[in-house]
This record gives sequence, structure tokens and C-alpha cells, in this order.
Amino acid sequence: MMQNRDFEENCTFCRISSGALSTPRVFEDQGSLAFLDHRPLFPGHSLLIPRQHFETLDDFPASRLGEFFFNVQLLSQAVQSAMDAEGSFIAMNNRVSQSVPHLHVHIVPRRRKDGLKGFFWPRTKYRSEEEMLSVNERICFAVEAMRKEISNHKK
Amino acid sequence: MMQNRDFEENCTFCRISSGALSTPRVFEDQGSLAFLDHRPLFPGHSLLIPRQHFETLDDFPASRLGEFFFNVQLLSQAVQSAMDAEGSFIAMNNRVSQSVPHLHVHIVPRRRKDGLKGFFWPRTKYRSEEEMLSVNERICFAVEAMRKEISNHKK
Repeated sequence: MMQNRDFEENCTFCRISSGALSTPRVFEDQGSLAFLDHRPLFPGHSLLIPRQHFETLDDFPASRLGEFFFNVQLLSQAVQSAMDAEGSFIAMNNRVSQSVPHLHVHIVPRRRKDGLKGFFWPRTKYRSEEEMLSVNERICFAVEAMRKEISNHKK
Repeated sequence: MMQNRDFEENCTFCRISSGALSTPRVFEDQGSLAFLDHRPLFPGHSLLIPRQHFETLDDFPASRLGEFFFNVQLLSQAVQSAMDAEGSFIAMNNRVSQSVPHLHVHIVPRRRKDGLKGFFWPRTKYRSEEEMLSVNERICFAVEAMRKEISNHKK
């Protein structure tokens, strides 16, 4: 099932995916699998990974985003239901703060007043409307550039 | 383009989507649009929302996950490129800690040593292997239940 080129020997999540590292799974299908994070934010905190090695979401094949995020949606609901939670927190770190360089989606059950007030604690402000508009413009340009790049690469 | 039943009059993001509330956009297509968060974690912090009103990821139509997360992937790359970032942080709050009850994906540029050490600060541990296996089993059961429910509702 696993093709060698999709497997990174030193990657913990590839080793879980291949079975070389044994861990109970909360979910699996042909393309992805999920297991409990050993240092959970709250019990039930699960990690969904693709079986193949992709470092970040940016590297993941666009054609498989639908099936992968269908599983994120499924697990969000399952984790909430299993843990009697009121909501979920879903997150990905791409490169920075990414403990294992194999794409993984954190799916965390949440309850009101669970102590995680909001994960965005050091909120800041734009110094001026002009700064905000300038950032806006830079991202617009980058979007257009990415769209061109993606259309050149993937079509 | 906007159908009335998909619009919640009191929803800030529906009002942005419809144009009733004017805000610059960093991205838009037929199904979704993105704009800068006014209280960014870091400049360039963008929010991608579906044009239609869905409260959380759990409520979003499975058939449109592919196109929606394609835009997340695009924006992750565009925001990094525009802000000279080294990575990105992508997150969704479902119900708990969700400031506006209209699905929105946070797309945040990240740099090493940017002060956001890791967003999962109050990490905990399972008290025992047994507790972990019991949680594992509960989620497995919930996954199976959700799969049945989804297959009943959506097929």
C-alpha cells in the first residue's frame, strides 16, 4: 500500500502510518489515519495525518483536499461526540511550530470555560489604515501570483 | 448571487459577504472570500469565509470542502509570500472561542522566534495508558456512529 517514495525513514508519522511504530488509531481509511496526541491539550485531542509523506498543507495535492478535509470534519464531530464537548478547535502548523514535519491536523474537543480562553493571545493592531491597506494589497498580489503558479504547475 | 436563506441578517460576516459591510478583500471567488483580521496575531492574518452562512466546519457541505480548502492552501502560500514568512498557522474554532458564528479559517503568517512559541500551551497528559485507550475506544465508536449518520443524511 505504501510506496517507498512516499515514505521518509526518519519521520515518526511515516513510521506510524506504515505500522513500524505501533499506536492505537481512532480512525483510518485509504488515504489518512488519526491517533491520539500523547500530550493533549484536552483528552481526545487527535491528529489526522495523510498516509503519504507531505511536509505541510502547502505541499498536499489539491485533488485530495476534499477527501482529507472530509475526514477532518468527520473527526471534529466524532471527537466532540465522544468527549461530550461543545465545540472543537482545528489547527495546522506549517513549518513554524510544527513538531513533526509531516502534515497533521490537530482536532481538539472544546468546552466553554475549559481554560483555553482563545488561542490568539498576543493580538496586535495595524498602526494605521494605510498599513492595513498596504498589507491587503501585498496579499492580493501574492494571491494572483500563486494562482498563476498553481495553474502553471497543476494544469 | 446570494440567496436569502443563506444570509443571516445579524451576522457580520454575512454582511461583509453581501457587501452591506464594506471591507477590502485579499481574495474572492464564487464560493468564498478573505479579508484581513482587524486584530491580527501578526500583520497579514487573514480570514477566509464561505459566502453562504454556515456556523461551523461541521455544518459545511462535504461536497464543497475541496474547493474551500483549496483556497485555504492558496491563501496560506500567498500570505507567506506577501509577508516574507517562514510558515503559516491555520486554525478554525468551532463554536467555543468562535467570535463570529460564521465559519472562518484563520490564516496567519509565522516566523521562527515570532513570540508565538506554540499555541498549545497548557498541554496535559493522560493519567494512564488505560485512560488513553478508553478515550481511543470512545472516539472509534463515535467515528463509526458519525459515518453511519453521515451516510444516512448525505446519500
